[in-house]
Amino acid sequence: MDCNFMLRAIELANKAAELGEVPVGAVIVRKSDGIVVGEGFNMREASKNALAHAEIIAINNACKKLGGWRLPQCAIYITLEPCPMCCGAIINSRIDDVIFGAYDSKSGSVKSVQQMFELPYNYKPSVTGGIMQQECSALLSNFFQNLRNSRRTTS
Amino acid sequence: MDCNFMLRAIELANKAAELGEVPVGAVIVRKSDGIVVGEGFNMREASKNALAHAEIIAINNACKKLGGWRLPQCAIYITLEPCPMCCGAIINSRIDDVIFGAYDSKSGSVKSVQQMFELPYNYKPSVTGGIMQQECSALLSNFFQNLRNSRRTTS
Repeated sequence: MDCNFMLRAIELANKAAELGEVPVGAVIVRKSDGIVVGEGFNMREASKNALAHAEIIAINNACKKLGGWRLPQCAIYITLEPCPMCCGAIINSRIDDVIFGAYDSKSGSVKSVQQMFELPYNYKPSVTGGIMQQECSALLSNFFQNLRNSRRTTS
Repeated sequence: MDCNFMLRAIELANKAAELGEVPVGAVIVRKSDGIVVGEGFNMREASKNALAHAEIIAINNACKKLGGWRLPQCAIYITLEPCPMCCGAIINSRIDDVIFGAYDSKSGSVKSVQQMFELPYNYKPSVTGGIMQQECSALLSNFFQNLRNSRRTTS
């Protein structure tokens, strides 16, 4: 676990916020050499696509970069606990380690709504939650606070 | 529910099999006018991408065609019970109805490994499983039988 990768994920989440997207960022790192093989931030609104979560964009990039559907020896750093789609994509791409920041009581599928990685699927990553939790939660609370303020100003 | 769309999904699954991919097909239909807005078949090996399941390809196409991340008034027909990634993508794209053929004891996340749509996520599609189950199961059993036979011949 390396906090620099979570800092990079936070940087990516801030890019999403600048575009008016719910700020979530993800970074995939190959553990053997520490090279970033995939990055993404939430683009659901801009891309008009339900699949455009930070993790899916990062996994797509990493598969292209590494040339296969398996991403062994890789860790994914995410600012927010992944949703069921992204947890499933992590299982499908055989990512070794999942490191996330804030918990998500509405969609989080590692610990919150369900514990997907405890179910008898054919693959189980290791999980570390709550890393830089305060910073990662602040990303979201600041974003929604700004959104409420701007709505109040314009209404 | 319209068996013609499941027949089309089976046709798509056969295209996957011709490419040596595990045969799964998916069709998304707009219910108001019966127009097919997205189609896909499993391309995991050919595209070297963990995300390239039939349903994800179909949802991606449908979002592009309908111009938004929500796919309301849409039904998805799938030859196989969807995996957790694809169930999550169905939740995220707000597809109304999920109709699938064969059950998948290893990854199926509607009924088999878990009942994802019964969990307290912010969206719940309606589900009909086991439609044309025999034909959909035969797709897979024939594929794996042929694979075993060809391995026996070449070994």
